[in-house]
Amino acid sequence: MNELKVFSIKKNIHEDNEKVANETREALKRHNAYLINVMSSPGSGKTTTLVSTINALKEEMKIGVIEADVDSDVDARTVQNAGAKAVQMHTGGLCHLDATMTQSGINELGVEDLDLVFLENIGNLICPVGYDTGAMKNVAILSVPEGDDKPLKYPKIFGKVDVLIVNKIDVMEHFDFNIDLLEERVRKLNKDILIIPISAKTGEGVDLWVNWIREEMRGR
Amino acid sequence: MNELKVFSIKKNIHEDNEKVANETREALKRHNAYLINVMSSPGSGKTTTLVSTINALKEEMKIGVIEADVDSDVDARTVQNAGAKAVQMHTGGLCHLDATMTQSGINELGVEDLDLVFLENIGNLICPVGYDTGAMKNVAILSVPEGDDKPLKYPKIFGKVDVLIVNKIDVMEHFDFNIDLLEERVRKLNKDILIIPISAKTGEGVDLWVNWIREEMRGR
Repeated sequence: MNELKVFSIKKNIHEDNEKVANETREALKRHNAYLINVMSSPGSGKTTTLVSTINALKEEMKIGVIEADVDSDVDARTVQNAGAKAVQMHTGGLCHLDATMTQSGINELGVEDLDLVFLENIGNLICPVGYDTGAMKNVAILSVPEGDDKPLKYPKIFGKVDVLIVNKIDVMEHFDFNIDLLEERVRKLNKDILIIPISAKTGEGVDLWVNWIREEMRGR
Repeated sequence: MNELKVFSIKKNIHEDNEKVANETREALKRHNAYLINVMSSPGSGKTTTLVSTINALKEEMKIGVIEADVDSDVDARTVQNAGAKAVQMHTGGLCHLDATMTQSGINELGVEDLDLVFLENIGNLICPVGYDTGAMKNVAILSVPEGDDKPLKYPKIFGKVDVLIVNKIDVMEHFDFNIDLLEERVRKLNKDILIIPISAKTGEGVDLWVNWIREEMRGR
């Protein structure tokens, strides 16, 4: 098994998060690396979605993943095994990532040789939303078992992201989930959002998501 | 539709959370009201579990629910329709409830006429864990679609609670979820925990959970 960097971060006292985020974006642009911040509840399938994405794109580009978790390194090992360069950040009790923490992750990962970097944020629909990490784009994943009412309860995240991936559509028939109603609720918060239903497990819809990434990176 | 109290809480500056929590417990005991704090990820089925519980117990006792959410009042309306007395607390961007916030909820609800009160905490596996709310017992719900690896990533909550409800067992066959492995992981963090697999949707296992509540209340 490859060596895996695991390190802990602490809450920083940098007050100007926006400044650090902008510096991060500039530095990434200089290295021609594209950073996507992925947020969701615990268990909605962030890691499985990244594995599908890595599998679809790894022949075309070099991919890195910064994994953030309260504890454990299971996700970083999973994406590493899929073929990405990976580091695992431990946040202890912290429930969000800010720009300085993301910068630590980027420094630990080393992005000079990478085209595409994912920041797998902490499993949480509330805390991560308030912080610009320095990513070029922000993506949320909502899985079918979580329910179509989540935009009502956690409006901020749905209002902020560029893309909403609706994951686990392969089990749709077993849950009381109305995707039209979900879309209606999400569009009220965010009229420009791109909604992509996928099953990271079966691969359904992953091509749409991967094409969106290709398009965005072409325009960088 | 019955009138529903919806109110907002803010982060308080009370430093001695433990003191407020103990006062809350004493006050609840004087009123002979039993408070259970229910925590989980978004979409794991807290509200559906409470509805099943209310349906099973409402002929024997008077039940109240303090619903906490970042926004919306859908959960409070749902439990109210099931026959519970309910209030909805809005926490804005806050991702946890402390003892003072819980006290506000208790005051708004009014527990003098209640036997059993549920605090439906904010959908989050990280923030709520650090705060004693004043509840007699703490319960976590993990749903099958979230995965059996969650104790590795969010050890604190599994280490703290008295009961772990494993919900959505009716869809077990559609997910890669090993309940024995989950139990092994949870027991390493918390050897005394009671693990109750249920389907709040079909009702399977709910009798075990409801019997646990009856036993605990008998011993109060």
